[in-house]
Amino acid sequence: MEFELIHTLKRSFAQVRGQSVELSIGDDAAVLRINSRVVWTIDDSVEDVHFRLNWLSVEQASERAFHAAASDIAAMGAKPLAALCSVQLPAPATAVQLRGFRRGQLAASKATGCPIIGGNLTRGAAWRFTTTVLGSVTRPVTRAAARPGYELWLFGNVGMAACGRHWLTEQEKKRSPAKAAKDIAACVRAFVRPKALLQEGSTLDGRTQAAIDISDGLAADAEKLAAASGVKLILERALLEAALPGSLKVAAAQLGLDALSLALGGGEDYALLVAGPARQRPTGARCIGRVARGRGAWLEEAGRLAPLSQGFDHFAAR
Amino acid sequence: MEFELIHTLKRSFAQVRGQSVELSIGDDAAVLRINSRVVWTIDDSVEDVHFRLNWLSVEQASERAFHAAASDIAAMGAKPLAALCSVQLPAPATAVQLRGFRRGQLAASKATGCPIIGGNLTRGAAWRFTTTVLGSVTRPVTRAAARPGYELWLFGNVGMAACGRHWLTEQEKKRSPAKAAKDIAACVRAFVRPKALLQEGSTLDGRTQAAIDISDGLAADAEKLAAASGVKLILERALLEAALPGSLKVAAAQLGLDALSLALGGGEDYALLVAGPARQRPTGARCIGRVARGRGAWLEEAGRLAPLSQGFDHFAAR
Repeated sequence: MEFELIHTLKRSFAQVRGQSVELSIGDDAAVLRINSRVVWTIDDSVEDVHFRLNWLSVEQASERAFHAAASDIAAMGAKPLAALCSVQLPAPATAVQLRGFRRGQLAASKATGCPIIGGNLTRGAAWRFTTTVLGSVTRPVTRAAARPGYELWLFGNVGMAACGRHWLTEQEKKRSPAKAAKDIAACVRAFVRPKALLQEGSTLDGRTQAAIDISDGLAADAEKLAAASGVKLILERALLEAALPGSLKVAAAQLGLDALSLALGGGEDYALLVAGPARQRPTGARCIGRVARGRGAWLEEAGRLAPLSQGFDHFAAR
Repeated sequence: MEFELIHTLKRSFAQVRGQSVELSIGDDAAVLRINSRVVWTIDDSVEDVHFRLNWLSVEQASERAFHAAASDIAAMGAKPLAALCSVQLPAPATAVQLRGFRRGQLAASKATGCPIIGGNLTRGAAWRFTTTVLGSVTRPVTRAAARPGYELWLFGNVGMAACGRHWLTEQEKKRSPAKAAKDIAACVRAFVRPKALLQEGSTLDGRTQAAIDISDGLAADAEKLAAASGVKLILERALLEAALPGSLKVAAAQLGLDALSLALGGGEDYALLVAGPARQRPTGARCIGRVARGRGAWLEEAGRLAPLSQGFDHFAAR
């Protein structure tokens, strides 16, 4: 059974060649030919920590884990080169789940243009996806380049995934879960199927711009960007509220939640928060504030500043 | 508590720069400048699968996990560039364990000359170390280059780790564990503190040599080398027995085990099995057999060949 499973899985992640990849699955290590600056990340997605199988399928969890890792590459303004995936399979994994795991990985690999060139399989109590991704970049977009006078931009949506996660958590407690109304369903999709914003990230320029991917919530990640750049980030409430998607506002109202709190405190949308000079504002980026001299991340309303409450911390083990 | 822990851990894995590393811990991804062929691996070491904390300390488990991952780099004939480490901390981890985790990682990083430039921390039920390593190489030593007429060489020892693991398993069942005799203690050390054979690997030439690191047992890994190269590997019993360390023979006898079976079936020594032309035999490599036309891995005794029994499989989730 183990041998057969491994054989099937290995075959489905066949040898990939071309571009930088000279040798993929099947040896002690993959081989690449690289002549550039690269960015490199590792990310984990763990059952009953980051997702629950009452909320989404193994296929969706697998696809989601890959996009979450690729989001770090997007936030550096890089182009994915390749990935290695270490997956822990629970002992009672079904054939449907194993096929789903494979399909989810391959779908995300295709969507991100990032071949899976190796990995590792272990057994354990729960599903666990650990994904390491290399990307090539000319001028990496770090968190440290924000300067007073810059604008703050948002690529993608914030708050929807947290709203969707809230609904999934609530439904799990009930015996007969309701069908989600249209806007709530959109939020659930945002949680279940995030997309790494690689195209958006690739438009950034690390010489004059700073970026972070919002995995832990806009407030917490804005604090990190501010700290790394040694500046003050001011989110302007009116701009931020104008940037919130209609679906989030409707869904939050239906669930008795506050859309702004979801946007500030919720994470896992994998949106990008970017700082740069006004004249460089990229197409599709919405301005939600500005950078000033000082420290920390603040919310401005009617000319008054309030410190942003602490959201989830990325480094906090959840 | 979480914040403090994270802060302490981050500080202890401080910014590394120099060589290829331009940016390490603290951004969405690490940044390196690479202008070479690279090899890239990911490896897992899981509590109660690969080790037990009744057998070794968290510090030792942490150091061991890093060497096991670096061993793949050694087997490709490469030089480590950098590593990312994703670590799952169990909820009841003690301060002593957390310091041990850090010390083990840093000791292995120093011993292998491989800076840790990023990672991820999650919470979970057990300790789990996932290590991804990049190495630079001119001519990668794959498993596919073994040719009929080559010799088979061994760097490092096989069987000792399995013998040590056996003793640790037996001791765990007893209420008052005995102190290991000298040779058994050497075997326990081989299990607890393996070293990636990077120096030995770096002497290899991928144009004319093939190699694999023996993590799953000599028999199983010889089968893989034979399959990848499309050749027959013949381990000569007399040569192999002559290559076994005296400590293994003594320890096996004391424990009522067969040293040759431990050498063939046991893994986790992180020795290197290499095939190459006789005139290229590197200093320190012991000849244990030869390569011929055909398929599979065989043990030769008194001119007769027996197929090697299947050992652990590397891809089998254990």
